[in-house]
Amino acid sequence: MDDDLKSTTRRAFLRGSAAAVAGTAAGAAAAGPDPLITELQDWASATGEGVDATPYGLPIEFEGDVIRRNVPWLTADPISSINFTPIHALDGTITPQGCAFERHHSGAIELRKDDYRLMINGLVDTPLVFSYADLERFPRENHVYFCECAANTGMEWAGAQLNGVQFTHGMIHNMEYTGVPLSTLLAEAGLDTAGDLADKWVYVEGADASSNGRSIPMEKALDDCLVAFKANGEALRKEHGYPVRLVVPGWEGNMWVKWMRRIEVMDGPVESREETSKYTDVLENGVARKWTWVMDAKSVITSPSPQSPITHGPGPMIISGLAWSGHGQITRVDVSKDGGMTWETARLGKQGDSKALTRFYLDTEWNGEDMLLQARAMDETGYVQPTKAQLREVRGENSIYHNNCIQTWYVNAQGIAENVEVS
Amino acid sequence: MDDDLKSTTRRAFLRGSAAAVAGTAAGAAAAGPDPLITELQDWASATGEGVDATPYGLPIEFEGDVIRRNVPWLTADPISSINFTPIHALDGTITPQGCAFERHHSGAIELRKDDYRLMINGLVDTPLVFSYADLERFPRENHVYFCECAANTGMEWAGAQLNGVQFTHGMIHNMEYTGVPLSTLLAEAGLDTAGDLADKWVYVEGADASSNGRSIPMEKALDDCLVAFKANGEALRKEHGYPVRLVVPGWEGNMWVKWMRRIEVMDGPVESREETSKYTDVLENGVARKWTWVMDAKSVITSPSPQSPITHGPGPMIISGLAWSGHGQITRVDVSKDGGMTWETARLGKQGDSKALTRFYLDTEWNGEDMLLQARAMDETGYVQPTKAQLREVRGENSIYHNNCIQTWYVNAQGIAENVEVS
Repeated sequence: MDDDLKSTTRRAFLRGSAAAVAGTAAGAAAAGPDPLITELQDWASATGEGVDATPYGLPIEFEGDVIRRNVPWLTADPISSINFTPIHALDGTITPQGCAFERHHSGAIELRKDDYRLMINGLVDTPLVFSYADLERFPRENHVYFCECAANTGMEWAGAQLNGVQFTHGMIHNMEYTGVPLSTLLAEAGLDTAGDLADKWVYVEGADASSNGRSIPMEKALDDCLVAFKANGEALRKEHGYPVRLVVPGWEGNMWVKWMRRIEVMDGPVESREETSKYTDVLENGVARKWTWVMDAKSVITSPSPQSPITHGPGPMIISGLAWSGHGQITRVDVSKDGGMTWETARLGKQGDSKALTRFYLDTEWNGEDMLLQARAMDETGYVQPTKAQLREVRGENSIYHNNCIQTWYVNAQGIAENVEVS
Repeated sequence: MDDDLKSTTRRAFLRGSAAAVAGTAAGAAAAGPDPLITELQDWASATGEGVDATPYGLPIEFEGDVIRRNVPWLTADPISSINFTPIHALDGTITPQGCAFERHHSGAIELRKDDYRLMINGLVDTPLVFSYADLERFPRENHVYFCECAANTGMEWAGAQLNGVQFTHGMIHNMEYTGVPLSTLLAEAGLDTAGDLADKWVYVEGADASSNGRSIPMEKALDDCLVAFKANGEALRKEHGYPVRLVVPGWEGNMWVKWMRRIEVMDGPVESREETSKYTDVLENGVARKWTWVMDAKSVITSPSPQSPITHGPGPMIISGLAWSGHGQITRVDVSKDGGMTWETARLGKQGDSKALTRFYLDTEWNGEDMLLQARAMDETGYVQPTKAQLREVRGENSIYHNNCIQTWYVNAQGIAENVEVS
């Protein structure tokens, strides 16, 4: 450890620590002659739970608030609605399936592997229907990718409305997927790779009642799309499309069709409901942008944040957050404590994979005064995450989707954070 | 896709596919004029479950066999016992916490974050006790590491005894950990880094009734050990040491002290029960090797395997498995179908992290005849995983721990696999 850092950290920490201990349930003991020594954790006085207790485990009861949450007033009915990943309470980059956000258009359906079928038809030599067992016989790949709903942060267009990063930015998760490249299955059906592929599309639909059909240009279909059946090592959860969903790396979550039932190769897009009346971006002049598939570079501070206040006094503080880009790798994240007037470059927890969440940390000191916290992400294309003002200039305020602007948290001297706008 | 591969795969697949479909519940339809077309997945006729149904989700009911399993006759009592990760049913590399193996010496205990204390004492300038909140104020890191019990595969020393890869190799999991480097906390307490660190050790104990104390040489303590509080993004589970455990990358799982309560800096090892009468390797001549901390390079085929038979006919087949090394990265995995006479080099799902699980695949063809399947791992040090005969030559058969030999599955013409030994 660097000696200067060591001494600095240390002097600062001992100040902060006293305050932290005094703030705990065991605070009384802090009045003793040597509170730091008398506070040793007791040994358990009894044995604990055996290895036969939980064949499949859940989080400990004390973490009962780290759950998906929906907002009833956002939608008319929970079967066509969303809930949010508790990103304020998570760290690292992987999202456990159990608390990864859901978005359904007609509810999460149950399909058995034995009953499952996937058809490829349309402009192919040999239309095929694959059983789940068939899919397991093709070479498969493992990749970590983020999945973000196009409407993530959508409530922020009209102003700072939801007071929690779980609700402003929680329609995202990041998992290690195992699946067969879509290009492999298209080749199996005899896709005619001659001619201008730029004129060809695939139309993908799910087996749920909504079908949620989406058109995908052939270039993307052959690039990195995966027909996935595992996430974070285990089977997809029912709510994430068990047994098979499409993974469309870096593109809006609505295209990651769940309970995938059919892929039709076509000579143009379908212009379905989900890509015309929905998932298009209405500009100031009333014109709607369509085919805005890629999720641009974005970041947000998860701690401190409205659901994760500062619980200690002045001194060492870790500012932590997430950054991601549908265009590839995150190369840099800057953090501002003064609403964007000055910036410090954050440390990346580790270099994230392409089109995957990257965790960033600013290892800093809190002077005990209020702050206007912001994070700003940059990706490998050189793109820089815009301010809300810059985004509104181009997009107006009628949009619902693709809001990737810089988020601001106001943190007061008590460490309480709230969602605010800065002009 | 390569044209030769494409045509080969395709011809072969279509043979295999018919057989596969005939083997499914929908097999009857296969008698029809064009079964592959008539098999299209139905759309759901009703809406599914809403987003308010499961704030924290569990696997779908159809995956109810993908669970940790213990073997009652292995130990006298489940509070000092083990269970096994269902690696036969997982893919990719990440292990979900819910089905990651457990090993307790006096059961899994419950500790609240507010009550938690971690002491550092002994040969330091300033003995310190950290609260959980204190730990959150130090710079933290994210790393994916495997954790393998030293006794994993221990039942195989005496011969092929347990007929399932979950039981022969399932005392392993692989997670993304978030924590503070142990070196940072030792620096905070003022570890005297002058003098010969090679003479110094840390003794680490847990807050469970067994305490499970282990001595770790200072070089390792300062290298890559993490004081971890998150795994796969969320809090550690109760059974994995909530709220804080030690992560000792590449070293035997018993040293990854759970419910971590104290770190004492000493001028030598303690020679505790867990590093003398246990977790030492008795050789043929009765002499016991001690301080055998590193888990050497190892691999195993997870599918096909006794719990994961081949369910299709001849033709395309994916042989899948896991490889890992406590010395760093896996560089190559070979697979044999004839008990080690001939080998083919497998494809790595992706380059695994150092001291983390690496997934391998052999994309091959099954001729429908019986096989003696083996996998052989190599790591960045050039080490090659040994045969059982080679390992016994050096270690005898009295050992319990550190069995990293090549595993053999006999697969018959019906695709059924069993655990066997080859001379």
